[in-house]
Amino acid sequence: MVTGEAGSGTRALERLERLYTIGSGDGANRPGLSREEQEACELTAGWMRDAGLDVRWDPGGNLLGALPGSRPELPEVWTGSHLDSVPRGGRFDGPLGVVAGLEATAALARRGPFERTVCVVAFRDEEGSRFGMGCFGSRALCGEVEKEELELRDREGRTRHAALRAMGLELPLGGWLDRAPGVFLEAHVEQGPRLAEAGAPLGLVAGIAGLARGSATFIGAPGHAGTTPMAGRDDALCAAAAFVLAVRQAASSIPGAVATVGAIAVEAGAANVIPGRAVATVDARAPSSETFDRLTDSVAAAAAHAGGGLELRRKEPVSMAPGPTGVLRRELERLGLPAPELASGAGHDAGILAAAGVDTAMLFVRSLAGGVSHSPEELTSEEDVVLCVSVLEAALARLAGAASPR
Amino acid sequence: MVTGEAGSGTRALERLERLYTIGSGDGANRPGLSREEQEACELTAGWMRDAGLDVRWDPGGNLLGALPGSRPELPEVWTGSHLDSVPRGGRFDGPLGVVAGLEATAALARRGPFERTVCVVAFRDEEGSRFGMGCFGSRALCGEVEKEELELRDREGRTRHAALRAMGLELPLGGWLDRAPGVFLEAHVEQGPRLAEAGAPLGLVAGIAGLARGSATFIGAPGHAGTTPMAGRDDALCAAAAFVLAVRQAASSIPGAVATVGAIAVEAGAANVIPGRAVATVDARAPSSETFDRLTDSVAAAAAHAGGGLELRRKEPVSMAPGPTGVLRRELERLGLPAPELASGAGHDAGILAAAGVDTAMLFVRSLAGGVSHSPEELTSEEDVVLCVSVLEAALARLAGAASPR
Repeated sequence: MVTGEAGSGTRALERLERLYTIGSGDGANRPGLSREEQEACELTAGWMRDAGLDVRWDPGGNLLGALPGSRPELPEVWTGSHLDSVPRGGRFDGPLGVVAGLEATAALARRGPFERTVCVVAFRDEEGSRFGMGCFGSRALCGEVEKEELELRDREGRTRHAALRAMGLELPLGGWLDRAPGVFLEAHVEQGPRLAEAGAPLGLVAGIAGLARGSATFIGAPGHAGTTPMAGRDDALCAAAAFVLAVRQAASSIPGAVATVGAIAVEAGAANVIPGRAVATVDARAPSSETFDRLTDSVAAAAAHAGGGLELRRKEPVSMAPGPTGVLRRELERLGLPAPELASGAGHDAGILAAAGVDTAMLFVRSLAGGVSHSPEELTSEEDVVLCVSVLEAALARLAGAASPR
Repeated sequence: MVTGEAGSGTRALERLERLYTIGSGDGANRPGLSREEQEACELTAGWMRDAGLDVRWDPGGNLLGALPGSRPELPEVWTGSHLDSVPRGGRFDGPLGVVAGLEATAALARRGPFERTVCVVAFRDEEGSRFGMGCFGSRALCGEVEKEELELRDREGRTRHAALRAMGLELPLGGWLDRAPGVFLEAHVEQGPRLAEAGAPLGLVAGIAGLARGSATFIGAPGHAGTTPMAGRDDALCAAAAFVLAVRQAASSIPGAVATVGAIAVEAGAANVIPGRAVATVDARAPSSETFDRLTDSVAAAAAHAGGGLELRRKEPVSMAPGPTGVLRRELERLGLPAPELASGAGHDAGILAAAGVDTAMLFVRSLAGGVSHSPEELTSEEDVVLCVSVLEAALARLAGAASPR
């Protein structure tokens, strides 16, 4: 059934394991624009060169490996994902799309020539765990990075601007989408249980959920934990706790919606001081405009009810393009595989490119272990990686077009 | 009505303000065994010398200023409190007892001679905000510091042992209570609203509440905040939030009890990762053995109900001694002041000495601004400080005994 080169799955898994060893600690630790992410990119650049691709870095630090087409004036066909990780992340989230895209493109290089240039990309700082706003590399490409965002600081107080300069980069804020691809295919692990539940190794992404990200701030009255009677207290952490539970309740009652408080910063943060201030992170997502609006309204109501101030940045839901999605569907059908369509709860670089007008499609790969992700337990099988490479290779070949003999 | 020396209140307030300036930042920042606490002790040592007291430091780093009695073989009469602070603390919590005790002892030095030695003490690291276990100096005196406790680390990873060695100290774990006082009087701000509500400038402490201090740990399943359906989640912070609210509910239903979660540490602590682990601090206090047992049982039930593991260290409630408490009461009555008795919700060095068998009494001074404490808003009036000095001076004089002419 599988048309991919024998052994390409093994090599892909070996490369995913090799990338996983970068950055010490329990799980993957490759923050965006860090030394570890850079090391992962440079390792991958070497693999690109081994495959005969032309390696270059763009002004946002994104890594590109190109298989030049016979008609370089035509819009390029891109595939790829990202190589950074959340703290204590897994092996597959990001690297799978880069490594599988590289295997597929390497196969095309052996088959060539093709009309359009095919390019494997590793976008930078997709997760946003370090500076708080993800999909940095793809947004930089699309000219969607604001100047103020470069002043965001990580936990050590270092700005994104400083992290870029340490890599010798000075970002052109307007982006460089004039040299952008005509088509982008991103393969990515589902990071959820739906494909496994449906018995499907691969799936098509219909669209990417809207994402509201920010924080809720609760102000209380600090005081001595031993001497302030319960009746007279204004405890900021109690307000934040009520908000945490209300956010869970709000998302649970809206189909397809999820919402998470991932961290709370408490001041003074001492065992014997009543919290005077608590800041809770907020991450709320829903698949359609209607559910997204309902969810953000509910989160706002929860914050107001708990006496907090809410600040959220909205990224509206976005649909994938019918053209390249249809190409992926036909390849799934050709292999006799089911071709379920799913909404993506996670944001992806594909969503940024789609919103910027690039014809974009996403191929989800089945997550095992209950669909756990952002965790060292994240798991996808070698068989499913092989199928992913096979479908990508066939789809890229179709989109790039075999060069006619001259 | 007031017998204290004219101007002693102004000087005391000036000294409290001077101590408040040590350690930069919003509010008092003098962690236990820090450079800032040491600076406050050395400043106070200078004031002790100015008053003609003999200054010495004990093996725990506690500062003592002695007015030698005519019969040094008799047990000494001590007064004082502490000079360290919680992060962003106030002007009065601790320093008031040291500064007022010093004013009273300085007045005795001018009146002298007395039979018993009167000694002003500043105990070290009473708050415990830095290493997690307070009343360090008084417990060291009483031989209640365990070897393992010296290995507790502050946020920077420094051990208490290292902090002591930096001050040239090597703690004798057995204590040195054989040279301890016969009587200890501690003046302290109430840190609550009850005296203000009763219209009483000063109050007598009947006893010190039992204190259970520790943490509750919740383990969940980390995962991607965007792709893990709400129904399948095991969110450690949601469990901790339910615990925070249950702890508040438990304490609110028991007369005189208080309980606080002052901080929560969340892992991974990223906005887009479902919390896999959350550790909440616990501080639970109640005035009697019966209410203390009920409270700790309720907190344990709340942790179990939320699926958490609870670890608490217990310090049982302790009563003040009738003898020196009676001496304070008579001085309040002599001044025509009300003499309400209150339980102390806060732990104090007086509680450690009382539990170790020293005849101990505490004088509470009215807190204004709603009784707020552990905050820069903490407030006590100059008039009440003058009354405190006056009562302390008279009580110390009575307890020290005027020397008979020889």
